[in-house]
Amino acid sequence: MDIKQVKQLIEEKKYVKLKEELEDIHEVNISEILKLLDSKEALLIYRLLSKDIAAEVFSYLDPDDQEKLINGFTDVEIKDLIEELYWDDMIDLIEEMPASIVKKILKNSNAENRKLINHFLNYPEDSAGSLMTIEYISLYPEMTVKESLDYIRSVGNEKETIYTSYILDKGKKLLGTVSLKELILAEPNIKVKEIANEDVISVYTTDDQELIAEVFKKYDLITVPVIDKEGRMVGIITIDDIVDVIEEETTEDIQKMAAITPLEEKYLDIGPIEMAKKRIPWLAILMISASLTSAVISRYESILAQMTVLSSFMPLLSGTSGNAGSQVSALIIRGLSLGNIKLKDLYKVIWNEFRTSIIIGIVLAIINFFRLYYLEIALVGNPEKFRISLLVSISLMFTIIMSKIVGGILPIAVKSIKLDPALMASPLLTTIIDVMSLIVYFNLVHFFFNI
Amino acid sequence: MDIKQVKQLIEEKKYVKLKEELEDIHEVNISEILKLLDSKEALLIYRLLSKDIAAEVFSYLDPDDQEKLINGFTDVEIKDLIEELYWDDMIDLIEEMPASIVKKILKNSNAENRKLINHFLNYPEDSAGSLMTIEYISLYPEMTVKESLDYIRSVGNEKETIYTSYILDKGKKLLGTVSLKELILAEPNIKVKEIANEDVISVYTTDDQELIAEVFKKYDLITVPVIDKEGRMVGIITIDDIVDVIEEETTEDIQKMAAITPLEEKYLDIGPIEMAKKRIPWLAILMISASLTSAVISRYESILAQMTVLSSFMPLLSGTSGNAGSQVSALIIRGLSLGNIKLKDLYKVIWNEFRTSIIIGIVLAIINFFRLYYLEIALVGNPEKFRISLLVSISLMFTIIMSKIVGGILPIAVKSIKLDPALMASPLLTTIIDVMSLIVYFNLVHFFFNI
Repeated sequence: MDIKQVKQLIEEKKYVKLKEELEDIHEVNISEILKLLDSKEALLIYRLLSKDIAAEVFSYLDPDDQEKLINGFTDVEIKDLIEELYWDDMIDLIEEMPASIVKKILKNSNAENRKLINHFLNYPEDSAGSLMTIEYISLYPEMTVKESLDYIRSVGNEKETIYTSYILDKGKKLLGTVSLKELILAEPNIKVKEIANEDVISVYTTDDQELIAEVFKKYDLITVPVIDKEGRMVGIITIDDIVDVIEEETTEDIQKMAAITPLEEKYLDIGPIEMAKKRIPWLAILMISASLTSAVISRYESILAQMTVLSSFMPLLSGTSGNAGSQVSALIIRGLSLGNIKLKDLYKVIWNEFRTSIIIGIVLAIINFFRLYYLEIALVGNPEKFRISLLVSISLMFTIIMSKIVGGILPIAVKSIKLDPALMASPLLTTIIDVMSLIVYFNLVHFFFNI
Repeated sequence: MDIKQVKQLIEEKKYVKLKEELEDIHEVNISEILKLLDSKEALLIYRLLSKDIAAEVFSYLDPDDQEKLINGFTDVEIKDLIEELYWDDMIDLIEEMPASIVKKILKNSNAENRKLINHFLNYPEDSAGSLMTIEYISLYPEMTVKESLDYIRSVGNEKETIYTSYILDKGKKLLGTVSLKELILAEPNIKVKEIANEDVISVYTTDDQELIAEVFKKYDLITVPVIDKEGRMVGIITIDDIVDVIEEETTEDIQKMAAITPLEEKYLDIGPIEMAKKRIPWLAILMISASLTSAVISRYESILAQMTVLSSFMPLLSGTSGNAGSQVSALIIRGLSLGNIKLKDLYKVIWNEFRTSIIIGIVLAIINFFRLYYLEIALVGNPEKFRISLLVSISLMFTIIMSKIVGGILPIAVKSIKLDPALMASPLLTTIIDVMSLIVYFNLVHFFFNI
């Protein structure tokens, strides 16, 4: 069923057929169709769907499309929607919508829910509290397996997952978990506390989403219970939300490594002024710090004045060593964020890079020497061709070695003083390497030619 | 329970207490303890564990530690292990172990399993076939809900998940799925085919893991069935393996963007020669392509000879425009790999970058002009200070605009000819921008000073 067929059925007013066809496809695909329709048509389609499917389709829409739709909702439709939406999707919705719509939603919630919504809105962004949902199954320790299964049958339809049940005491303290698998395989008359897993991995409402993602990955979890600071269980987080977190965090790291303040929306949804604001700060800092390089060059201006040809090789040196350094820093930053590399590995990293960089430095210096000596246009007919080729290649070797070691140290150093390696290391690295490679180059020129 | 306590209990030979303590902690944490022990102690601990826990602990170990352990195994222990391991973990194990151990494993498998193992080893690396496991629950369409639940109870312990059952016909064709939730909530006497979901999302054995990860994310799946080219269901893939795939793919992208051939192991596990091999190719290509920049500079050598000070600003220009361009290319590469940006968005990207880059270009040019005019050491006392500051700033504005547009176009262009944007775009971009910014600069010099 594609958008063309949908439009045609709408035009021909074949609503019964349209409803039937829509019920055959996945909610995600219905949401994709809604995105392509104008708000009037989208609303028409939405109203054809049964309440629970409609709410699920709604939860797959982007905030923009949600807003488009919700603007046309009656109070009854809003009430139905918030009844059907899972709690975490509803909190997301309230966080994204403009004030007028939030007001409409709150007006249609009961007093208890309004209080709870306000409570959830107070959890810090990116914390467990803001990710969790409250639709989980709780059991008492004294319930039998049969009672538990009966209870799960009676409430299962409203819960986000029924595959893990949480055993709580009267004070909502989490005593253990029991999986549906264990319940199904167990004797009906024993008490759930007897088959409970007491060694439960849990997180706190205030834990950061990056940490929670680590916990999911480490223990291969599907859900995790969330505990508040009084020790009461208040919700669960499910893996589908964590997959989004992992992607979001990596996207942020990539943006920071490219010297961009992380974007809050998708690339295509951001206007040029907003976009410029995210990019100018680091570009300006990098540009201004480049004044260090021009200071270095101007200090050696007399050398360049005597042998202008030497300036031809500055971009080669700073470019190659910049690339060499950022190869390392990218590996280290990613390793630090995945937890494969720790602060204590600093000396291992330095030792690794020292050995690796010597190999790379020598290989590239040799390639470069032959390229310069036999192929470089700038050196054709130059009587000093041999010495210049040698000089540039030796400079290259030293700068590669230094860049690789600095590229290894910098992210770890930045992290050890509690700053963000992705944000700080890449931009700083470029400047440091530029300055360093020019100083090495000019000092070697001085040594080779005594000027 | 930490490593110190474990070592002490081993030393005091308090094995019963050790066993009790170990059974109280999570399998992941037991595996962490094993990693820190030598192979003799690790084997001792492993033998204290019950078979199923031991196999789970084993599956959390790195290949190195698995090898360390398995070398000490008796044939009986190997048999027990392969009986308890899930199929996907066993295939991973066989793929990672040296030939001598693989032989040992195959010797201890029955003929049927040996055949199946060989079949699985033939699936391409990173395909659905290599990720899937065969421990899923299949039902026949004519079974009742009660029969299905009884069957699930009888085999559930050996299956990786019991939360989705797959309804197959006699020819193993997938007719639909039914979740344990639906089975539990349904009338015991109706047939499963009546409550089956027939609109099943599935993947093919040959599908690439990146595509499968997309499917999981799009439909918020926990498991997906895998179909072979004859249309028969052959296995399932679970979300925990997909989380690993997502991370692996992103790590590869980051490595490629940093001009490194993707590493197959963790940073700290790779020796310097192997590491150098992964880094030299792109560094050499970039270095050689830098000969283009020296060719450009040498063409304008006479200009530099007349005004040496102009060479001071070359790194500033190429550095800033390089950063400006890679800001864009990083965003586009990530957007392409997440599917937020498509090939057809090329003109939107160009239009976005055109507007954004004009804002950024003007802002940075203004900042740069004042910095040069008032603060630049290289220009102190220079009679042409005003004109040079203006010239450099205008060059900067143009090169930023060009770099941003090229940075937007290049990854999309590379992708449209079916090459990998992460691999090709970043390295190419640097060279293009370097050459471009120098040509703009020298042409403006010519225009301003008529030299």
